[in-house]
Amino acid sequence: MVDSESVLKEHKERKGKYEILSKVPLGTREELSTFYTPGVAYVSEAIARDESGAYEYTTKGNTIAIVSDGTRVLGLGDIGPKAALPVMEGKAILFKKFGGVDAIPICIGTKDENEIIKFATQIAPTFGALNIEDIESPKSIRIADRLARSLDIPVFHDDQEGTSVVVLAALLNAMKIAGKKKDAKIVINGAGSAGIGIARLLTRASFSSIYVLDTSGLIYKGRKENMNEFKEEIAKSTNRDAKSGTLSEAAEGADVLIGVSQKGAFSKELISKMNERPIVFSLANPYPEIGYSEAKEAGAYVVATGASNTPNQVNNILAFPSIIRGLLDVRAKGLNYEMLESAAIAIAKSVGKDLSPEKIVPNPLEKNTAIKIAANVSAAVAAAAMKTGMARVEKDAKEVRKNTAGLIKRYWRMERKLAV
Amino acid sequence: MVDSESVLKEHKERKGKYEILSKVPLGTREELSTFYTPGVAYVSEAIARDESGAYEYTTKGNTIAIVSDGTRVLGLGDIGPKAALPVMEGKAILFKKFGGVDAIPICIGTKDENEIIKFATQIAPTFGALNIEDIESPKSIRIADRLARSLDIPVFHDDQEGTSVVVLAALLNAMKIAGKKKDAKIVINGAGSAGIGIARLLTRASFSSIYVLDTSGLIYKGRKENMNEFKEEIAKSTNRDAKSGTLSEAAEGADVLIGVSQKGAFSKELISKMNERPIVFSLANPYPEIGYSEAKEAGAYVVATGASNTPNQVNNILAFPSIIRGLLDVRAKGLNYEMLESAAIAIAKSVGKDLSPEKIVPNPLEKNTAIKIAANVSAAVAAAAMKTGMARVEKDAKEVRKNTAGLIKRYWRMERKLAV
Repeated sequence: MVDSESVLKEHKERKGKYEILSKVPLGTREELSTFYTPGVAYVSEAIARDESGAYEYTTKGNTIAIVSDGTRVLGLGDIGPKAALPVMEGKAILFKKFGGVDAIPICIGTKDENEIIKFATQIAPTFGALNIEDIESPKSIRIADRLARSLDIPVFHDDQEGTSVVVLAALLNAMKIAGKKKDAKIVINGAGSAGIGIARLLTRASFSSIYVLDTSGLIYKGRKENMNEFKEEIAKSTNRDAKSGTLSEAAEGADVLIGVSQKGAFSKELISKMNERPIVFSLANPYPEIGYSEAKEAGAYVVATGASNTPNQVNNILAFPSIIRGLLDVRAKGLNYEMLESAAIAIAKSVGKDLSPEKIVPNPLEKNTAIKIAANVSAAVAAAAMKTGMARVEKDAKEVRKNTAGLIKRYWRMERKLAV
Repeated sequence: MVDSESVLKEHKERKGKYEILSKVPLGTREELSTFYTPGVAYVSEAIARDESGAYEYTTKGNTIAIVSDGTRVLGLGDIGPKAALPVMEGKAILFKKFGGVDAIPICIGTKDENEIIKFATQIAPTFGALNIEDIESPKSIRIADRLARSLDIPVFHDDQEGTSVVVLAALLNAMKIAGKKKDAKIVINGAGSAGIGIARLLTRASFSSIYVLDTSGLIYKGRKENMNEFKEEIAKSTNRDAKSGTLSEAAEGADVLIGVSQKGAFSKELISKMNERPIVFSLANPYPEIGYSEAKEAGAYVVATGASNTPNQVNNILAFPSIIRGLLDVRAKGLNYEMLESAAIAIAKSVGKDLSPEKIVPNPLEKNTAIKIAANVSAAVAAAAMKTGMARVEKDAKEVRKNTAGLIKRYWRMERKLAV
């Protein structure tokens, strides 16, 4: 574990994590005349005539905004836009490093849902996609849903959708090893952005026996207390018998237990109530619902957590850079569940023959793995975008894979040259 | 002159002009733990406790947003946010190249004054300063003025303030050579952002005989037609006798004629009406009010234009990167006329002993000149900020100069290594 003093020192020395670099030479009169005035007027005129030219001639097609209001940053809660900035900067670099995507952190001084939606709508012309990040739930889900309906670029909500993709990838592999089918009983503890996102994606991916709990217990059709529109949606699409009950009751005979809740929410006793070969994903961060070793001792057959020092880290880095890469490559008009499911399958397959209870997800920090995953996922997402009519341009899988690998390698070479 | 085809080709090959580069290594578990989760939480907590930490630990202190609604792009008029993007990207690179400033182009999908102000207010937490760009006048001036009053970071309006600084710099040197004093008769043709900005700065710089004209002729106290609040302001601060009249009448006996209007607005005959040793700045872009040679033939003693192929190019590159550099270096709370006047004096002095009718402004494309100007201007602006109580931190001139030169040289080295 790193300590506070060294982390602050490293940040202070560098004054943040990203900077701007030119892609064009701009030092002579001729270069100025080409890339700035007067020549740039030709480019502006071309885009004014046909605005799809923004994808051809500007950064729009490779650039996204990471938008946060700082109301739910890591486990720190509502700490405001300035305090959210270090996190968004880190995320921006991960987008570039693992997806070749240029991402701009924009932390904003309003918490109002309608104002955030208006804000995101106003910046949309500049960007190829938006990433909504660390906004409190369920406001965050409403914002993502509403923007997805109104904008002509994809709106990605990593806390919800990124997490759900990596969870589905891990689940597909865990169930394969454990010999479980899509009718397995799946219990999701937590109904914030992550819980809702996982329930949504698993439902679309044809899992038929899903139960979601929040702090008031099982979510069921007809429940009155502590509901919101997304829990109502979940109540309709899961828990077919509309059972009420506690986590302990829900865990009875469960095949899969997914925690996106809080530290210590799962006990050994809880796991002992589950079906044979139980699968436990304990994803609260930085402290899991139950630790990896403890879950194994309690009889869990496959365990995954958010921690990097035990096997099977469920890490959104596996998903967000390469999903956005795929979306940008076909100039997608939006994002849908077909793309998310395709991304999950691609991540799951990337594990290959190493698949085992200790290896259900790939490790994004292995360099060749990172490029392979990004290529697989971006190609899968691009294909799903084309298939569902969301692509502005058509590209074959090979082309997308090659572009993704090329962009990432190019960037790594740049970092080596500069000794970043 | 560059041609349309090659400009479009160059832009298409590169897909825009800037990209994101990491300032931190982020490839190992330990690096991830330091610059992303879980370590980054220490940084967020530190800023949540004391938000001035955003200047210490994040990109805020070196990053600005270039905000445009695309309503007055170059000479192209209202072409919209996407068509404005190529221009803003070029400007962003110039900020980095000549000031070591990280600038993010943000072209927005609203033209409403109040919405633009709200938008700029919402993004302010992320940035150390804002640059308002290519927004139609007088809306642009109102936006800049209102934001300057309400925000706790500087709001720079290059079309108004950047232009006025370079014009004042050129004017100080031209008048020195021509032996003219601050009571010289100065005629400004044009009352858009540039005209208003020049009139404002020259007034603050104690020039006592200023006349401003728009398409309706001289602006004077009591004029009814074609006025707005900024022309009313100008009517009070200039043209003391409240004269009405045409450009031809205003030019009678003028010492200085400044055009920020349109192609062909000045004639040889007009210049022949001026006082001895007339100074003519013909700044309409890309086509001047009168060409350099023609103005000289008509008897102008010193001529400046916006063109790069004749002497004395009045080029905002001389001002905007280094003014913002100085503001960021002292974490300025705002921008004022003392800073702008100091910047102009510093640019004027940078010409040194080369001063002649053919050299009243330095050439920013000479490499050593660029660094020298940036160091001079940033130090002057920082000093003015401290003197007027607008600096959050104190730095001596030497420190600012050294930092400016260091940042620019570092960036140029990076570009060389990457062969940009």
